Order: sequence, then structure tokens, then C-alpha cells
Amino acid sequence: MDKEEAARAAHKARTQKHKEVVDAKIAAAQTDKGLLLVLTGNGKGKSSSAFGMVARMLGYGRRVAIFQFIKGAENVGERAFFSALPGVIWEKCGEGFTWETQSRERDIAAARAGWEKAKAALQDPDIALVVLDELTYLVTYRYLELEEIMPVLEARPPMQHVVITGRSAHKTLVDAADTVSAIADVKHAFRDGVRAQEGIDR
Amino acid sequence: MDKEEAARAAHKARTQKHKEVVDAKIAAAQTDKGLLLVLTGNGKGKSSSAFGMVARMLGYGRRVAIFQFIKGAENVGERAFFSALPGVIWEKCGEGFTWETQSRERDIAAARAGWEKAKAALQDPDIALVVLDELTYLVTYRYLELEEIMPVLEARPPMQHVVITGRSAHKTLVDAADTVSAIADVKHAFRDGVRAQEGIDR
Repeated sequence: MDKEEAARAAHKARTQKHKEVVDAKIAAAQTDKGLLLVLTGNGKGKSSSAFGMVARMLGYGRRVAIFQFIKGAENVGERAFFSALPGVIWEKCGEGFTWETQSRERDIAAARAGWEKAKAALQDPDIALVVLDELTYLVTYRYLELEEIMPVLEARPPMQHVVITGRSAHKTLVDAADTVSAIADVKHAFRDGVRAQEGIDR
Repeated sequence: MDKEEAARAAHKARTQKHKEVVDAKIAAAQTDKGLLLVLTGNGKGKSSSAFGMVARMLGYGRRVAIFQFIKGAENVGERAFFSALPGVIWEKCGEGFTWETQSRERDIAAARAGWEKAKAALQDPDIALVVLDELTYLVTYRYLELEEIMPVLEARPPMQHVVITGRSAHKTLVDAADTVSAIADVKHAFRDGVRAQEGIDR
């Protein structure tokens, strides 16, 4: 056996062992269930990631419902792309952050109206994925109480997935979630004077 | 002025001040440029986020190119959804992680062939967004050298955006990036025995 063959054999032995470990983990994971996912943190990628899952779910021909609770004018690209597709419910339930609307009453009314629509989706087993985009802020600002949100999430159809996005997710949401990613803002072009770019940020 | 009116006025004053701060920051950010984004970390949401940006960009009717360097059979939903759309170049450049293929030579050949195609996209100003999904592993495993990657990224059309995903992004990629998100795995359903769910994980 020459040197190259020996290296190849060593690589194969190493990767074979790794494969056995990974395969065993995959074999141990056999449950199917509707997941509650929370994407939080200050970094870029929370809503984008939710929209990536929307695309993925549409790839299986399943229905999805998206509720955008805060975003105002800036969610142009994703709305243009998804809202016209069959199988997609798209609800814009806010006019922007509270410092833009400057009326707490109007914000609360928009949030509550959005939540009533989201509740209907969260009872519909034909909807495979519900995105509650920026719901965390509704909890933080106390536009909606956790006592209203949690029972609805818990009572949803068992195979329905829910993705909640937004900064500073409340501990109750994190505790209830199956999967939680915290997206740290290591660096952002905005701080270098780059405005929100079409197709990337909006 | 009664108590409720006073609360309303206080809210308006607070939010007005916040609005001024936010507006000033937005006014200061006026540059447009093609961004290099790196989405790294061990948590769920790196590739999903890239696909969310693909959807966003398609919402503006622009062209995108996606190169999936590692993923094998599991990227079913996103491929089914995006690969058939007009304006999308979709290249699968790997057969799975190295411990699945168990042949370093084959992995390197697949990575290099993918990179040659990606290089062409990275020279085409009509492509608004290039996703180099899981490129970080090619650097980690030394399937491709940074000396080959960096000059191509630097010489790309000035308005072209690039998203690189994958765990353990090399410092050189992070340093060169405009926006970097590090996605921490706070909790993942897989560890509770839930297998990859259609429309969420694959």
C-alpha cells in the first residue's frame, strides 16, 4: 500500500466512523410533529429565514399563512413574490413600528385585528405552516398578552408548524418552542452607511 | 388634560423622539452597494434565510443563482420550489457531507466543478444575487483555497449581492463581509428525537 492509498484508507475509516455516529443519531430521531420555531436576536436573517421555510413548504405543494405584524412599507420583495401565489395567505397586520405610527391605540387595533385572523389559521389543519412575523414585539409592547397567545399555539393542529420571529422573544415563547435560533448581529452594512437593499433587506 | 390624554401625549413624545433618532440613522445611510453577507453559526436558519432573500429578490423580477455545495438528498422543498422558476439558476454541486460520500477525491471534484460554475455567475452583472450555500465547509475541509475564492468575490460586479452560508465561517470571509449574522442553536427539535420535517428542515 503506497502513501496515497494509505491516506485514502485513513480518510475512509475516519468518515466511516463519523457516518455511523451521524446515522445512529438520525435513526434515533423518528418523531414527526408540528414544530414551534422561534427566530430571535438582533441579527439579520429572522424574517428571511421564515420566508425560506415558506418557499420550502410551497415546494411540497402545502398551504402557508403569513402574518406580518409590524413591518410597514419595507417588505416589498417578499410580498410581491409570495402574496400572489396559490396556497399562500398573506396578511399585513401593521403599519410599521410604533415610533412610526405614533399612536398606541392604532397599533393595538392593528395587532388585535391581525391576531384574530392568525387565530383562524392556527385552527386550520390544511395550513401546514403559519408564520407570525415579528410577533415578539406585540408581546414586548403588551399589545397582546401571552395568556391569549399561548393557548392558541398549544391547541393548534398537531402537524402544523409555526414560526415566530422578532427580537427579544419572551422566555415563555422560548420555553414553549421546539427549535430556537438566536441570530447575533456580528456586523451589519447599515452601520457602514448602506441603506436597505432591494432583494436583501426588503 | 385627563390621565388618559396625558398618557397618550407622553407616548407620542417618546415615540416622536425615537422616530427622530431612527430617521436620522436612516437618512445617514444612503449608499447602495452589492453586499457580501455571511450567515454562520450552528443554529437553524442559515440556508433558509438565504432562500428567503432569493424569494425577496425574485419579487423585484431580478435574476438569482444558487449553488448548493454540500447538501445531498435533503434539500427537496426549496429545490422543487425555486429550481423551476424563470430567472433562477440552481446548481447542486455536492452529493452530501464528506462522511456520506466517503471519498475525498469525489468531494473535491464536485466542489471544484461547482466553483467553476459559481465563478461564471460571479462575473455576470445580470445576476443580482448569488447564493453560495455551505461554501464555508469547502474552506474548512480545504476543498477550495481562500486564495482562489477571495479575488473572485472582490472582482464581482459592484451591485451584485452574495450570500455565503455554513458553520464555522473562516475569519477571512467574516472580515471581507458587509453583514454577518451568527446563528446560535439555542434549542433544536432534532435533539428531542424529531426528524427533519418537510417544509421546515428540508
